[in-house]
Amino acid sequence: MKPEVLLSRIHVVLCRPSHPGNIGAAARAMKTMGLSRLHLVEPRAAFPDPEADVRATGAVDVLREARIHKSLADAVADATFVVALSARRRDLGPEVGEPREVVARLLSAAVDGNVALVFGNETVGLSNEEIQQCHVAVTIPANPDFSSLNLGAAVQILCYEIRMAAYLGVPPPVDLRVTTFASPQATHGELEGLYGHFEEVMTDTGFFNPAQPGRLLPKLRRLFGRVRLERDEINILRGILAATQNPTQHARKR
Amino acid sequence: MKPEVLLSRIHVVLCRPSHPGNIGAAARAMKTMGLSRLHLVEPRAAFPDPEADVRATGAVDVLREARIHKSLADAVADATFVVALSARRRDLGPEVGEPREVVARLLSAAVDGNVALVFGNETVGLSNEEIQQCHVAVTIPANPDFSSLNLGAAVQILCYEIRMAAYLGVPPPVDLRVTTFASPQATHGELEGLYGHFEEVMTDTGFFNPAQPGRLLPKLRRLFGRVRLERDEINILRGILAATQNPTQHARKR
Repeated sequence: MKPEVLLSRIHVVLCRPSHPGNIGAAARAMKTMGLSRLHLVEPRAAFPDPEADVRATGAVDVLREARIHKSLADAVADATFVVALSARRRDLGPEVGEPREVVARLLSAAVDGNVALVFGNETVGLSNEEIQQCHVAVTIPANPDFSSLNLGAAVQILCYEIRMAAYLGVPPPVDLRVTTFASPQATHGELEGLYGHFEEVMTDTGFFNPAQPGRLLPKLRRLFGRVRLERDEINILRGILAATQNPTQHARKR
Repeated sequence: MKPEVLLSRIHVVLCRPSHPGNIGAAARAMKTMGLSRLHLVEPRAAFPDPEADVRATGAVDVLREARIHKSLADAVADATFVVALSARRRDLGPEVGEPREVVARLLSAAVDGNVALVFGNETVGLSNEEIQQCHVAVTIPANPDFSSLNLGAAVQILCYEIRMAAYLGVPPPVDLRVTTFASPQATHGELEGLYGHFEEVMTDTGFFNPAQPGRLLPKLRRLFGRVRLERDEINILRGILAATQNPTQHARKR
């Protein structure tokens, strides 16, 4: 697949950015590396904004094509692989990798469809709820004594790694997926449907108490987030869940 | 040699920077990647400058230690290897390489002494005379249709490559692995127990017909085989399966 096509499938999502200037810097950083799909989730200031345009310089077209969303879930609804930038470790959350390794996986996933790279607010980052919607987290291994990369710089580094990997024809080191009877990658929406179905069955059977949720749901997200489910597999799992809710006439007598 | 020592030998030189804000951004970019030696050749505005401090945020110490020079020759006088960032090819000039390759040479030279990485003015770059004083030129392989990286972004990318190379094969200062609720890897026997439990529930509910098994069981094995389940995760999945077989008294009414 042509690098240009891969790059066109990589969507950059900025969640609740505070400063329009940083949105412009992100657009510029993206375009210098050949990326163009920008999404904004609840930007704090009105958008478009003249300061964003100034910082974008020749990348104003990326800003003009940017899409605004009310939630991260909306922004990544059709993505089959979602990577979050995370500056810190979290108790609950997806597995964490370094840029070069995670970018190789992102490009490998882009062969199958749209993928997303998600950045949080400049000060507070991503919420736990948001990061749990992502399949993998990436941390830029910055100076532990001063890891304060600004948003534009973080976008720049990751887009640079993406471009380098896309054009150097570096094949992903190992493709872990067995493709024999592979079906298309599940979308983010399909995965959320699975989690909702699990929650319903677990609640109905008394295995899960919504009043005392503990860490059960994040653990399930961690498990299924790292396996990169295919659509067919989601259908099987949901079929099993549905069957436990409504056993068929053919059900075996117990 | 310790990565920290190598990084301390890499001097960043900005020739005739026009905007104090960009000097601050360069200082911040350097410090996030563990570099600290900044040199300015004939900055166009008075230095220090409040705008530089603002853009540097927590890297003001790098600005305070910066040295001012009247010429590039002065700035790199004690460097044994000098690399120039160059956005374009030149008739006359040193050989040109890509960042990863050139950075490897830069670090290798830093084992023997001080080295320098030289950036030109935001608009006009380096003069021919200056670039001929450098041993190697490096070009960031940006989008040919929009290669307009700003100065801070270019410094960020190269310092990032330097840090990645300096720590290559060295345990990173930050532990990237999230281990908080990781439990031991499941054994083969535990995994087989899970498959057996799935088969039982699927058969009991009529979802699976042992007389016409199709590919259902291999698909489940493929799914859970590639995720490398932990013991804790097996327990959760089997807990859910058991709960569907015997809902507790606390189960929600349907």
